[in-house]
Amino acid sequence: MAISAQAGPAVEACFLSSILEAVDLALSSAKRPVALHEPRFGARERELVMDCVDTGWVSSAGRYVTLFEEMVASAVGVPHAVAVVNGTTALHAALVLEGVRPGDEVIVPSITFVATANAVSHAGAVPHFVDSTWMTMGLDPVALDEHLQQVSERRDGQLFNRQTGRRIRAVVPVHVFGHPVDVPQLQALLAKYDLIFIEDATESLGSTWKGQACGTFGHSAVLSFNGNKIITTGGGGMILTADDQYARRARHLTTTAKIAHQWAFEHDEVGYNYRLPNINAALGCGQVERLPEMVAAKRALATRYMQVFENVSGARIFREPGGAASNYWLNTLVLDREFSDERDALLSMLHANGIQARPLWTPLHLLPMYSDCPRAPLPVAEDMFTRCINLPSSPFLSGERN
Amino acid sequence: MAISAQAGPAVEACFLSSILEAVDLALSSAKRPVALHEPRFGARERELVMDCVDTGWVSSAGRYVTLFEEMVASAVGVPHAVAVVNGTTALHAALVLEGVRPGDEVIVPSITFVATANAVSHAGAVPHFVDSTWMTMGLDPVALDEHLQQVSERRDGQLFNRQTGRRIRAVVPVHVFGHPVDVPQLQALLAKYDLIFIEDATESLGSTWKGQACGTFGHSAVLSFNGNKIITTGGGGMILTADDQYARRARHLTTTAKIAHQWAFEHDEVGYNYRLPNINAALGCGQVERLPEMVAAKRALATRYMQVFENVSGARIFREPGGAASNYWLNTLVLDREFSDERDALLSMLHANGIQARPLWTPLHLLPMYSDCPRAPLPVAEDMFTRCINLPSSPFLSGERN
Ligand SMILES: Cc1ncc(COP(=O)(O)O)c(C=O)c1O
Ligand SMILES: Cc1ncc(COP(=O)(O)O)c(C=O)c1O
Repeated sequence: MAISAQAGPAVEACFLSSILEAVDLALSSAKRPVALHEPRFGARERELVMDCVDTGWVSSAGRYVTLFEEMVASAVGVPHAVAVVNGTTALHAALVLEGVRPGDEVIVPSITFVATANAVSHAGAVPHFVDSTWMTMGLDPVALDEHLQQVSERRDGQLFNRQTGRRIRAVVPVHVFGHPVDVPQLQALLAKYDLIFIEDATESLGSTWKGQACGTFGHSAVLSFNGNKIITTGGGGMILTADDQYARRARHLTTTAKIAHQWAFEHDEVGYNYRLPNINAALGCGQVERLPEMVAAKRALATRYMQVFENVSGARIFREPGGAASNYWLNTLVLDREFSDERDALLSMLHANGIQARPLWTPLHLLPMYSDCPRAPLPVAEDMFTRCINLPSSPFLSGERN
Repeated sequence: MAISAQAGPAVEACFLSSILEAVDLALSSAKRPVALHEPRFGARERELVMDCVDTGWVSSAGRYVTLFEEMVASAVGVPHAVAVVNGTTALHAALVLEGVRPGDEVIVPSITFVATANAVSHAGAVPHFVDSTWMTMGLDPVALDEHLQQVSERRDGQLFNRQTGRRIRAVVPVHVFGHPVDVPQLQALLAKYDLIFIEDATESLGSTWKGQACGTFGHSAVLSFNGNKIITTGGGGMILTADDQYARRARHLTTTAKIAHQWAFEHDEVGYNYRLPNINAALGCGQVERLPEMVAAKRALATRYMQVFENVSGARIFREPGGAASNYWLNTLVLDREFSDERDALLSMLHANGIQARPLWTPLHLLPMYSDCPRAPLPVAEDMFTRCINLPSSPFLSGERN
């Protein structure tokens, strides 16, 4: 008894210090404290932003907004891109444009940033949580299929939740930390149930699945250019789609639904003021030019983490699923089950040593405002939450030039 | 018959060319085309924005957001200011924070930019239109009182619309084109009916009534820093209030309702991502420093317009109401009733001569999505729409240094 009671803390202490040592080694060239994710700008961003200020064209009427849209559309390989103030408003507008109506349900993972569910609420709809898979960290197609078989029924050509009586309209898979979801399985499943596929690609700009970019798999997709994302506009977002009419409506709805006229102010529906200002777009134009460089640097950092953790026992770095090339937006350390109790001690130790690691988002079904929402069993989401830690992932930490 | 049929067009042509001549005279020093309203930036804005880009602090976590809030709060003379992405989202958040709930009614003027009513819709509530007065161009307290006497009743300490059965929760007066509404009468009326006063001060930063600033009269107020406003952040807005608890809730609700923690992601209500990015706030810090100068320049331009129009018959420049000092955000030419049919011919002629004048916003009750909303008689709103034209009003047009 006495011996095993002492052995416990000793094993833990040894585990914690081996992790700290590995992270310290991976980040050896970085000054402390090391932030979770930081942007960096160069001469090009300075130049474009200054041009904006000098010409006075800082608001949404300026030409950088259109240029930024074109650059991102071409980088992703999607016909249309509509720039908005951030990823949350992009998702809100996309849901409205896809015909999600107040009282509908929208399927989302429980493991995602709260904005995914908030946008559903902003559209007056109800998030319906389905489990994630350790294969991708994203929505689990098998769990989704099983759950829909149990709770859904078709009526008048539409899918309903038998337990709540509400229509299930759409699914919003998230490519968590840049890792693509299981695209072919999800696409097949959504086709089978006739559900709309809206891609939350906020974390996965630059990620691909079998060579095709994230942001091109859903009927529409959204990006975020928040300060912590792979490229940033300060705050910003984008709606992507291949559907011409949808793109036109997206532009209209996000710019107060004003009818074009030389001087008159006529609007034909309740619109939003979601348009990205020109000064933010100018910053984005500079950033998108170096997207390939950023992705390469982030992948190099992920490789470095994997190398240093190869000889550490009790934890591993999450690897992109087969067929995918992830942007590794945030690197994730996964603790073995026996060490899941050590997560907070580890976070404290890392912070005490100037390393701003963080746990996963609290699974959304555990937050007070979403605790009564419909849901499938969520064992994997809860397991992930206890065992994952994100490590500092700024592209320049890899030591590559960028 | 033949003579008067010829005299008509001749009088019209003479009227139109006398207006053009006067506007041309007022704007004699400006290059054509003359925009309706343009921003201008100086060395200070360059410096602050570059500091943002150089330090990498472009997103909402940066220090310029707080600094901008403090500068605006002090310029207006209000205890709290919460910066958000624009005036529309500021108004939406303010309505939610004031307890406006889906299905409530909110009284707004029909003569305002569509965003005032849109924000009410975004909160799930219904705009209820009340007439404006030629005294201020804003909400008419007399018409409001008469209308509420006719349609409202108190039940359980709350005000209801007897015709629709819905609760009337708040009133959003707008200081149109910078001219303060009739503050004491409206305040007395709202107290009598126990309605919440939310000030749409998006157009009136720098305007005062008896020396007190617009933005300090309601329980809360909102500003806009859109590119066409008196000072700009590209796109931006602010919520103002003297209520400590309301300010804390405003900050929480507009930043995803995240609970402060060193690393955990917990949120306790459905929040919004409405926070202003730091790069936009940096621009704002530079702009707010010259607010007094901007107001002076805009008042000088208004005086110039009044002078040149003194000798023109058939139209006059709208003057600030007694007791008020307006920022004259947009100068308004009011045509005499006999010339109201000439509005569009006048707009065409001004545009053809490089002067980007515009009519009033189409009264909101005439837009398709608001045509079925509850409303009082709106004769003045419709009269204003036929007879008002906004003239170019950029501060630097006055020729004053700025
Ligand atoms: C998965 C996910 N969805 C939505 C968002 C919302 O994006 P934004 O912060 O730009 O509103 C984010 C990023 O913050 C995110 O990570
Ligand atoms: C009266 C009025 N209300 C609300 C708004 C909305 O502000 P913003 O354009 O910043 O969303 C504006 C300005 O555009 C306005 O003029």
